[in-house]
Amino acid sequence: MKQHGKIPDIVIRRLPLYLRALEILEPNENPIISSEQLAKMITSSAGQVRKDFSYFGVFGKQGVGYHIVSLRDELRKILKLDRELRVGLIGAGNLGEALVRYHQKNRMHHPLEIVALFDIDSQKVGQQIAGVEIFDLKNLSIQIEKCQIKMMILAFPAVDVQEVVDCCIASGVKSFLNFVPASLKIPLGIKLQTADVSLELQSLAYYT
Amino acid sequence: MKQHGKIPDIVIRRLPLYLRALEILEPNENPIISSEQLAKMITSSAGQVRKDFSYFGVFGKQGVGYHIVSLRDELRKILKLDRELRVGLIGAGNLGEALVRYHQKNRMHHPLEIVALFDIDSQKVGQQIAGVEIFDLKNLSIQIEKCQIKMMILAFPAVDVQEVVDCCIASGVKSFLNFVPASLKIPLGIKLQTADVSLELQSLAYYT
Repeated sequence: MKQHGKIPDIVIRRLPLYLRALEILEPNENPIISSEQLAKMITSSAGQVRKDFSYFGVFGKQGVGYHIVSLRDELRKILKLDRELRVGLIGAGNLGEALVRYHQKNRMHHPLEIVALFDIDSQKVGQQIAGVEIFDLKNLSIQIEKCQIKMMILAFPAVDVQEVVDCCIASGVKSFLNFVPASLKIPLGIKLQTADVSLELQSLAYYT
Repeated sequence: MKQHGKIPDIVIRRLPLYLRALEILEPNENPIISSEQLAKMITSSAGQVRKDFSYFGVFGKQGVGYHIVSLRDELRKILKLDRELRVGLIGAGNLGEALVRYHQKNRMHHPLEIVALFDIDSQKVGQQIAGVEIFDLKNLSIQIEKCQIKMMILAFPAVDVQEVVDCCIASGVKSFLNFVPASLKIPLGIKLQTADVSLELQSLAYYT
């Protein structure tokens, strides 16, 4: 794998789709997949598939295709899914609970683990959701360092969000999945992806 | 507004972000915003802002900026948020419930309305979540036509998903927000956006 520079976000966002498709396949039956076949599985084009992989110096064999197991391993390595990654979640409300349960059910063999939940509600602190403990938001900084959390999911009402995000970053969090409807400022080198359902629905309206 | 052809999805996805930023502003105080100011609000660059808007023939006044109220109206028109849009949701479980409550709370003055939920659980059919009735999935097709649903949120376990999606399309649904961990095939002219939390987390791992 060649050293890759700045890759477009949209390419990075497609990699887990490729990976999921490859994980469905049975490489014992046929160890090779063509870019056409892979494209079809994720409703894309063969050219797009080849271009996406070329960013990482991954090339199929001309007229043959990609070796499924190698490509899978390569994608996991690129996405850093070949090592453990500890995730926290702030907001043990309706949305937070759904997200934890959903993740625990669908994570399959991926090494992303939600290790701690945070809430301000003292009634919830100390309880568990799907086996994950709820900690007091007051102890956010300590707990992030203790649990070595590198990724944080934000799923709480839009109050003091910037303050909470700043605290996470100062304690070592590198990326955020944000469900909070708020505009946030983040420094260079930190990644924030907004998974705001209202925004998703609004952009989808364009296609109706 | 000029007639626009195929606009990159990534541009469409940024439009609601601009819109939200513009909706926060008080145009009575200052009716104009520069591309630099707008870029800062959504952590982007002025060049990106100008390029995004140029796709739709929307140009600011050189050295001055954009008229906030006009730009807002223009964005709403482009996103088709200047008219009512009726949305359905399949799967009244943990995730579905969180999504409905979240949307009802955060939709503000946008004309996207969740008008019907669907589930196979006869215990749930006839009940309401946040004022929205749960219908039997058996009546999906009839209800889509009756309620004139154009957008569907998929939030149910990954069983028979393709069949359900095909039924929606045949009944008039034009776009999907998909939370189901499954690879789906959709015909040209229909838009499916995957908001799969596991996928989002996996692509974010790249940045940790």
